[in-house]
Amino acid sequence: MQRPEPLLALTMGDACGIGPEIIAKYWQSHGADSARHLLVVGDLCVMLRAVSWMPPQLRPQVVALSSPAQAREMALGCIGVWTPPGLPQDLLTAPLGQVDVRAGRAAAACIREAVRLAQTGEGAGTGTAPLRKEALALAGEPYPGHTELLQAEGSPPGQAPAPVRMMLANEELKTVLVTIHVSLRQAIEQITEAAVLETIRIAHTSAQSWGMPRPRIGVAGLNPHAGEGGLFGDEEITAISPAIAAARAEGIEASGPHAPDTVFMRARHAPPRHVGEFDIVIAMYHDQGLIPVKYLGLDEGVNVTLGLPFVRTSPDHGTAFDLAGTGRADPTSFARAVRMARTLVAGRAGAGQG
Amino acid sequence: MQRPEPLLALTMGDACGIGPEIIAKYWQSHGADSARHLLVVGDLCVMLRAVSWMPPQLRPQVVALSSPAQAREMALGCIGVWTPPGLPQDLLTAPLGQVDVRAGRAAAACIREAVRLAQTGEGAGTGTAPLRKEALALAGEPYPGHTELLQAEGSPPGQAPAPVRMMLANEELKTVLVTIHVSLRQAIEQITEAAVLETIRIAHTSAQSWGMPRPRIGVAGLNPHAGEGGLFGDEEITAISPAIAAARAEGIEASGPHAPDTVFMRARHAPPRHVGEFDIVIAMYHDQGLIPVKYLGLDEGVNVTLGLPFVRTSPDHGTAFDLAGTGRADPTSFARAVRMARTLVAGRAGAGQG
Repeated sequence: MQRPEPLLALTMGDACGIGPEIIAKYWQSHGADSARHLLVVGDLCVMLRAVSWMPPQLRPQVVALSSPAQAREMALGCIGVWTPPGLPQDLLTAPLGQVDVRAGRAAAACIREAVRLAQTGEGAGTGTAPLRKEALALAGEPYPGHTELLQAEGSPPGQAPAPVRMMLANEELKTVLVTIHVSLRQAIEQITEAAVLETIRIAHTSAQSWGMPRPRIGVAGLNPHAGEGGLFGDEEITAISPAIAAARAEGIEASGPHAPDTVFMRARHAPPRHVGEFDIVIAMYHDQGLIPVKYLGLDEGVNVTLGLPFVRTSPDHGTAFDLAGTGRADPTSFARAVRMARTLVAGRAGAGQG
Repeated sequence: MQRPEPLLALTMGDACGIGPEIIAKYWQSHGADSARHLLVVGDLCVMLRAVSWMPPQLRPQVVALSSPAQAREMALGCIGVWTPPGLPQDLLTAPLGQVDVRAGRAAAACIREAVRLAQTGEGAGTGTAPLRKEALALAGEPYPGHTELLQAEGSPPGQAPAPVRMMLANEELKTVLVTIHVSLRQAIEQITEAAVLETIRIAHTSAQSWGMPRPRIGVAGLNPHAGEGGLFGDEEITAISPAIAAARAEGIEASGPHAPDTVFMRARHAPPRHVGEFDIVIAMYHDQGLIPVKYLGLDEGVNVTLGLPFVRTSPDHGTAFDLAGTGRADPTSFARAVRMARTLVAGRAGAGQG
């Protein structure tokens, strides 16, 4: 008997933000292909409220699942909502557009449930709607955000959390960052052989799990023209090249350091004119990687957390408290995040890791 | 009587490289709209040789001009070549694809002539085919490259050379760099209030000369999210914001510092979907500006030197000695450089500065 395709869990995020609404809108616009492999991990009433903001003729049906597996039996277009035990009962009384302890507690509970589903093999990954860090903190969570929570919960008990890296991706380009939210000066300090090598390894292992047996990894330099042999900085010589050599010695198809101003263009996959030279580009710092991914339009970029034992994607925006309850939230980025997660999950299943 | 449209001088660059060939090919492919406002400043025999590498049916006619002004009387499709006095007589004996003192001397003489034409008002700008820095040095030139030579020759005698900045531009995006060919560490050190303000001023004055009375100048930050209020670095607070404030006090429509990862996307001008928010983006360092300009394809980027009293553009490649004499040089980038120069010159004429 064939094993059923694994489920993707969409966590509702902060109930006082736009998360529930973008999930409902995503379902409405992608109803035909979305059900049966997706379930919402969240609160039923919160989801019903979000649906009520949509025009009557567009409202998808909302169904309370009695088990996650029941998602596979949903009629096309129905939102199956799985409510994990222990969610606060009075979530609808938390005011929209405000930081609330109950919303923080519920958001964290939904994420933990998505991790649990992945660990039991029922789920293969999660697309996370945005949460509010302040609400998590109010709820007494020890983790500042999604990534840290997923990292801690996703690691085997008693082990240190696995190192993770942020990937930004659209249909043309996948870029994995060595450093993220630090000043450019600090980013330069953090670019060590060990940090670059770990990033290459995480990118390699992740790409293999998506069904690429031998991903071509292009590593950007740090300095203009990748330093031009030490003329404009030596980080390529002292850190980046040794990391690439070590990765190659492990059998990873890594190359570089490449000139940063052209490596993203070379990796760009936009047939027929551009067929990318690299499957993934390793970027040294935040803007080096994000400028090219975002250049063609903000809604095109999807965040993917690499290094977790399951797929995790998220849209490239926050809770947008100012829009909560208006019915005007834009589901485009979330839809791309779900599509990316489904593609990666399908690759995992194909690679025998589903 | 209407003043005639000013001429654009195309300097042939290094005679042993691909410069003459890309000029000839440009002329062939753009013959209908190129003559009468363009002239080649170079050697007649070198240009005839370049034409001889083209298929017979495609060869443009080459005409020796007796004065630069005669370019206006050329038949459509004819290459008018103006040979400045003092060019080496035996240029054809300089071996193709090699560094040669005569080629360096000739390249410098052609650039000086283009500057002279601009100073007398006959010319309004120059599109420069690539030269070889080693050949310039062999010829005893005190300037390492095009930019320094143009800067020195273009400034009034006895005055210090005017500060210049490099602009990279394509049809979607114009970006002006505060720092260029230094390590990223050094670039950060060079980002001072004075350097940023000078860049904004040069960009503003240049854009006005192209016929934009009130250019909208978006200034990028240095750090992720433009530092997020000092959380990720303070250069936005200590240098960039004060420079923007000073520019605004001078009446310049500058804004920022904007988050680097989205400012280029916001400036992108690709109707109908993207109508740019900014006419020019000020980038803090080489790759910040060059990654987005090059992302859509290397041949799309044109170099423009700002701060000179005339328009100067150049293609985004070098002499390609390995291709010299093969007839396989690609004129695309040079054609874009000429088109950009013609657009800017036309703007100058319209702005009453022609």
